[in-house]
Amino acid sequence: MSNQNGKSETYTVRPIGTIHADKGEFYLEVDETYRPALKLLGEWSHVMVVWWADQVDTEELRGIMQAELPYAPGTVAGIFATRSPARPNPLTVTNAAVLGIDEEKGIVRLAYIDAEDGTPLVDIKPYVPMSDRIRDAKYASWFEGFPEYYEDAAEFFATHEVDFGD
Amino acid sequence: MSNQNGKSETYTVRPIGTIHADKGEFYLEVDETYRPALKLLGEWSHVMVVWWADQVDTEELRGIMQAELPYAPGTVAGIFATRSPARPNPLTVTNAAVLGIDEEKGIVRLAYIDAEDGTPLVDIKPYVPMSDRIRDAKYASWFEGFPEYYEDAAEFFATHEVDFGD
Repeated sequence: MSNQNGKSETYTVRPIGTIHADKGEFYLEVDETYRPALKLLGEWSHVMVVWWADQVDTEELRGIMQAELPYAPGTVAGIFATRSPARPNPLTVTNAAVLGIDEEKGIVRLAYIDAEDGTPLVDIKPYVPMSDRIRDAKYASWFEGFPEYYEDAAEFFATHEVDFGD
Repeated sequence: MSNQNGKSETYTVRPIGTIHADKGEFYLEVDETYRPALKLLGEWSHVMVVWWADQVDTEELRGIMQAELPYAPGTVAGIFATRSPARPNPLTVTNAAVLGIDEEKGIVRLAYIDAEDGTPLVDIKPYVPMSDRIRDAKYASWFEGFPEYYEDAAEFFATHEVDFGD
């Protein structure tokens, strides 16, 4: 099927593996077919992990366009102004530090990832400073005072209670 | 269809709009259904744009697992170690500075985006410093000396020739 612009109306994502997050261990397990694509990934310190939030992949949740922010009661924002996994296309992008890679077994060990155990893995990309590290990026007002860098997030959340609604 | 783990074998991406990149103007045009999801997106300075690289969405290109890097002749890397749009799932993630938003018309004006005009738009997320700005991220060896921040990329590419093969 295609639309007026001659573009397809839908596209097909095929999982390339699975995210494991259990007992303090975090790793990506890449299916055999895709393991050659890991070659030299270990040259990079951090990766961008793209996953399909299958637990919120329902017609109802894909149709929700706005929600009250659990961390900012009284503020109703569009879903595109949030990082909620429940969204029209339930794709999530999470950055993570790489601890080690076994290209043959298809294992990418990570310091941490906030996905549920068993989540379908869609893509792995290197984190590229000239594309991804933005000096001038500013928070929305409801996140004022939140950490300025990824490395400072763990300590912040250890000492602040923030309700992300999950 | 589902696999041994009881997970679906494929997932369906539905474009939420179109990327316009023509004559030095860059903007996202969000389809009417999804426009309410833009509410308050303008609170954020930068967005992460997720798009479907439909021009390289062929079975042949989705099946390529390794390639010689045009910017590092002689180095063959796995596709997951690159940001090439041609990959098993041709999803691309690009960060961009927001210039302005018209929620009613579904327009998000950007300073720049490296997508082809007419590219299907899959998602818009805020760029969140505590998740996305990584102080300690390092380049792979083949990119040594490349800019450390997004803001420095334009000047770098104005004064250096780099072959990205496109």
